Amino acid sequence: MFNVIALILALAGAVEESSAPRTVSELGNGVWQIRFGTPEAFTPNVFRECEPRWEALDRLPKDALIPFDLNGITGDIRASRTVVSIPCDEPDSHIYGFGLDPGAFDQKGLRKWLSVCASVVGKTGASHGPVPFYVSTRGYGIYVDTARVPFVHVARLARKDAPAREPSADQAALSTSEKELYAACKAQGTRQVVFDIPGNTSGIDVYVFAGPTVREAVQRFNLFAGGGCMPPLWGLGLKYRTHSNAMEEEVLRLAKSFREMKIPCDMFGLEPGWQTHAYSCSLAWSGERFPHHQAMVDQLWGMNFRVNLWEHAYIHPTSPLFAPLKDHSGEYLVWEGLVVDFPDPAASKLFADYHENELINKGISAFKADECDRQFIDDTTPFNYPYFTKFPSGIDGDQMTQLYGYLYQRSILSAFKKKGLRTWGDVRATTALAAPLPFNLYSDAYEFDQYLRQLVNASFCGLLWSPEVREAGTREETLNRIGMSSLAPQMCLNIWFMPHPIWEQYNRAKNEKHDLLPKEEQQAMAGRIRDIANLRMSLLPYLYACFFRYREEGLPPVRALVLEFPNDPGVYFIDDQYMYGDALMAAPFLRAAHERSVYFPADCAWIDFRTNKKYPGGTKQTVQGDPGDVPLFVKENSLLPVATPVERVARDTIFDLTVCVYGDTPAPMALIEDDGETYNYERGQFNRVILAWEKGKIMVTREGNFPETRYRINAWKKIQGE
Amino acid sequence: MFNVIALILALAGAVEESSAPRTVSELGNGVWQIRFGTPEAFTPNVFRECEPRWEALDRLPKDALIPFDLNGITGDIRASRTVVSIPCDEPDSHIYGFGLDPGAFDQKGLRKWLSVCASVVGKTGASHGPVPFYVSTRGYGIYVDTARVPFVHVARLARKDAPAREPSADQAALSTSEKELYAACKAQGTRQVVFDIPGNTSGIDVYVFAGPTVREAVQRFNLFAGGGCMPPLWGLGLKYRTHSNAMEEEVLRLAKSFREMKIPCDMFGLEPGWQTHAYSCSLAWSGERFPHHQAMVDQLWGMNFRVNLWEHAYIHPTSPLFAPLKDHSGEYLVWEGLVVDFPDPAASKLFADYHENELINKGISAFKADECDRQFIDDTTPFNYPYFTKFPSGIDGDQMTQLYGYLYQRSILSAFKKKGLRTWGDVRATTALAAPLPFNLYSDAYEFDQYLRQLVNASFCGLLWSPEVREAGTREETLNRIGMSSLAPQMCLNIWFMPHPIWEQYNRAKNEKHDLLPKEEQQAMAGRIRDIANLRMSLLPYLYACFFRYREEGLPPVRALVLEFPNDPGVYFIDDQYMYGDALMAAPFLRAAHERSVYFPADCAWIDFRTNKKYPGGTKQTVQGDPGDVPLFVKENSLLPVATPVERVARDTIFDLTVCVYGDTPAPMALIEDDGETYNYERGQFNRVILAWEKGKIMVTREGNFPETRYRINAWKKIQGE
Repeated sequence: MFNVIALILALAGAVEESSAPRTVSELGNGVWQIRFGTPEAFTPNVFRECEPRWEALDRLPKDALIPFDLNGITGDIRASRTVVSIPCDEPDSHIYGFGLDPGAFDQKGLRKWLSVCASVVGKTGASHGPVPFYVSTRGYGIYVDTARVPFVHVARLARKDAPAREPSADQAALSTSEKELYAACKAQGTRQVVFDIPGNTSGIDVYVFAGPTVREAVQRFNLFAGGGCMPPLWGLGLKYRTHSNAMEEEVLRLAKSFREMKIPCDMFGLEPGWQTHAYSCSLAWSGERFPHHQAMVDQLWGMNFRVNLWEHAYIHPTSPLFAPLKDHSGEYLVWEGLVVDFPDPAASKLFADYHENELINKGISAFKADECDRQFIDDTTPFNYPYFTKFPSGIDGDQMTQLYGYLYQRSILSAFKKKGLRTWGDVRATTALAAPLPFNLYSDAYEFDQYLRQLVNASFCGLLWSPEVREAGTREETLNRIGMSSLAPQMCLNIWFMPHPIWEQYNRAKNEKHDLLPKEEQQAMAGRIRDIANLRMSLLPYLYACFFRYREEGLPPVRALVLEFPNDPGVYFIDDQYMYGDALMAAPFLRAAHERSVYFPADCAWIDFRTNKKYPGGTKQTVQGDPGDVPLFVKENSLLPVATPVERVARDTIFDLTVCVYGDTPAPMALIEDDGETYNYERGQFNRVILAWEKGKIMVTREGNFPETRYRINAWKKIQGE
Repeated sequence: MFNVIALILALAGAVEESSAPRTVSELGNGVWQIRFGTPEAFTPNVFRECEPRWEALDRLPKDALIPFDLNGITGDIRASRTVVSIPCDEPDSHIYGFGLDPGAFDQKGLRKWLSVCASVVGKTGASHGPVPFYVSTRGYGIYVDTARVPFVHVARLARKDAPAREPSADQAALSTSEKELYAACKAQGTRQVVFDIPGNTSGIDVYVFAGPTVREAVQRFNLFAGGGCMPPLWGLGLKYRTHSNAMEEEVLRLAKSFREMKIPCDMFGLEPGWQTHAYSCSLAWSGERFPHHQAMVDQLWGMNFRVNLWEHAYIHPTSPLFAPLKDHSGEYLVWEGLVVDFPDPAASKLFADYHENELINKGISAFKADECDRQFIDDTTPFNYPYFTKFPSGIDGDQMTQLYGYLYQRSILSAFKKKGLRTWGDVRATTALAAPLPFNLYSDAYEFDQYLRQLVNASFCGLLWSPEVREAGTREETLNRIGMSSLAPQMCLNIWFMPHPIWEQYNRAKNEKHDLLPKEEQQAMAGRIRDIANLRMSLLPYLYACFFRYREEGLPPVRALVLEFPNDPGVYFIDDQYMYGDALMAAPFLRAAHERSVYFPADCAWIDFRTNKKYPGGTKQTVQGDPGDVPLFVKENSLLPVATPVERVARDTIFDLTVCVYGDTPAPMALIEDDGETYNYERGQFNRVILAWEKGKIMVTREGNFPETRYRINAWKKIQGE
């Protein structure tokens, strides 16, 4: 199934006793597949959205070495499970990845449990986007292609037959406190990463991605997935989700108030109440709450608002989709609704066609695909089908639970693709190889630290994380959350449980009781939100270019610092700062803070985006700021195009740009100019607008055959930093 | 393998499409086995301690009916799991069981996850003693014989092809609050109990136990297991576990102070520090802390204290057992120690022989088998071997984790049995068919409500639960905890983390800082503890008789009220009161309370054990009492033999009894008289001392051939209740 000249290498030499027969194939530049037995019929790779981007992979470094013999990878296929072991003989290395992981960053020594999961489960990596992929700072990545739920022992197991070790210094002969007991085994780690995959009894593919650093390993993984997604330009504006009980007049009133108050906004999200029935979903407009829904959608279009509809894929008996899907669904119901058998192409098409004909054709631009995750073991509410559910396609319930969100996205996306339109959705679960899918993950959990860590961790595995804002106890935290959201792939205020806009009252309980802020505080709050959203809008052309790089090079727009500075040990534990594109480093204030410590990576100086204060690399310093102003630093020798903020992005929007020149020898950068909403860029309909600093001024070069101009470069300014 | 005339009934009629071929066998009176495919080689039944007690089963009611066709039970064996469905078409029935379950009592509508587990996990039934057995108030029990971790859907799944149902009243068309959403499906429950058993891919045995009520179903299950265990008589006295760092002088000093203060105590428990190394365990005496350990053990014996040693079955390289067990252990280490391959008879014998020769022969009477449970998913400390561990016996790590505590008990017990001695141990994990094992379960969790619920739930599944006392924030709660422990199978003060006895300071932090209670408070506290322990000692002959009944009839000494009053709907939700033998009902005060509501079951009156106040059956009333005085009620028309408390039970102890006569027509009861410490009772060396109320006085009849008298019936008193 790969568009590749596969080199099937029959392995010379003995295979280890416990390992199943294997085939090693070099699939492309720095990408190997090691096959044990017969892989299962339902894995992320089987349902990949795109072919790997082999030609883009070819542009990455050649001959990057893997620091161990690929024959050292073993796969043991047993009656109830498959066990894959990967060498990890690197005492000083660090390991990152495993998906969205809210709980852990540096993964060594941990036991992961890579389940799609609605809850945060310690440091297990159970999350809305678990991915059986990791990278090592020794410069490689490993992906195990499974839709089962693996336990992964990351360099922590002690084999009986391992060479004798010195007892660790912290291990006394007698441990009597609980603390001593459970700390006693740090030194035990063997030098392997072991995937224990219960339920897989036939075989598996393991993929190895070369470096030379974590950065290129991640790029290769994302390009293998098909490259990063390209959002519509309007998707990068603010999304506001309205109150769950909002009726059409209320939605229109709120939409108008955004324009009147000049708070930028590009998308309105409607919650379950747009339907005649939820939960489960009818996917049909409620005549009671939205009697003139088509007129409302048209009016919103007229104000340049896109509409995003909440839904889930459990289909209520009153839905027009119920009868057609009855024979294309699982044997058990969820919330009395059918569970769509997405792996069955007929089921996926029925679902997609309905969305196309009934919703997309009538002006809907995106969907929020909710409740497609897996409940944790301690949760006995009825939101999941049982894991043994049978589906007509033959997938088993366990695999389905891991893949449901992923396949759900693919079905929705196929409807948009058929119409040649991009979309920018929300989804509550995904898995590996999701980089090409234009959906942002979100969560019911709401811990500030975890939101930030997920933003960082998402960058290792081809995921997009939306640290949406729902409420906060204080003004400061509300603004800090909005600030962080503004410097994420998607900016989203998800105000579904508040009857009033968040600037009228950020406290949920008070908002629900209509106990609003004093008028002047409301205005001040709205003003701050406008400022924050305007900052995002001013960075929109820059962000769009970052996404294009995600697509072309597999380099995500938001990045852990270790992806940018793989050789600076100072960043190996930093999970609360990140690169926002090539030029910017963000270091959000946590909770209600207005001060924090920031590490400035070693190989360059940094200039505060707001104050122009300069910080030398390799230092850690305390910074202050106003709530909502995420500390933001420009890497010296960068060009940063800053736009005059627009309130919304229309097909004909033209951005006025000022190029900020940081340092004396800035590298050139390329903006991307296209229609912003179709797939014509895939057929070459785009321009690279290359900005370069030459002889003391900005040179602009356009390459490409998109006939329109969307960026006017009006000015530049040189910023030295102080 | 059964000592039974099995009626192998080839089933007439078609087997359902999804069900594997089956064999139905009637194994004994009211016990059926339904076999699907080929059962696995490692299950609780394969490792049963005793043969079923078929002759005792024959004394239970004959021809009790199962309210559904046994052919309605299906077993579906798949590539990654086996799914067993049992009819449950009983809208008004209640279901109990699934083992120790700290979180739930009435099990209908829940999803269980029957994992041996160190943590409390909501209402899943994950616990130190999960048991895939349940009973229905319709009068039957079902046991699924597996050492896998099943999910059990207890009458909660909604099949797509089920007949259409009316929407439930609480299900609105539009649910928008979280509460509505997750409550929306109560009416969905289909009428099946479904066991989903991942990892079982070959087949399974399902056992059905007849009633006519839950009581007889539990009796049959316990008799099928081999009947309840018979503790040594001394085991029913108080056990005190000493501080983890205690050295031999301290242990002896404390032992003497018990005798000086006349607080009854029969057993001293030593914590990890008795060994040269822990964690993992050397199982060898520390010369440093216990230089004269044999003399100490002998001295304790001289004061009639039994010694119980803490340990776990992860064997440290410095242990004499390490070399012999190296080839009889799993491939991975825990705390650097070997994991014993207990299913291998050679491994179990090596372990047992070491205990016999080095410890039991030198005066040790019992062991506390710790850390043999399974860590929960969120726990990444290194206390478990990985679930894929291979063992020479062929058991896989998943099965081993479920069976480790069970097999550990069996190994220890075999050493005592070989010497003809009974024991009374502690264990941190067990599973089904454990009724014959004389070990009490305990836990690191410490919620008062859960401790009480576990005491009640243990009674459905052949388990013993020890609500041990470790500390408490207040004097009242400390005493209430000690009170509850005194009315449990084992009374245990587990003071391992306090350097001073609990009566000198019940607050852990203060005790650790040597911040003790004022002297007079210490004395008062010691006095209360003495009183509570004396009450237990006065009930010791009664309790011993209850255990004998457990052995002979499968009726546990501690019982949920529904086991005693299966036809009184008033008890169907009561998980905080219990029968203590046939005559007594206990209703512990929770936490620091000194008042609570008590339900008095319907078919008789109840007399307060302390005040003689009489309560009519079928009522709910508020009762008060002093902290530590568990409200205790005698069922009218009972004979309750009360002993003059002794401080400890020796081989030659004779109990002086007063028979309390409650009501005008009390039923006779039988005390059991034997040596109290060997297995000679199994060969008939015991007396039934039958007490009967005839013509206004107590008649005593001795039946049996035990030559000694251990009970002197000195007096009786008639108590009417007021």
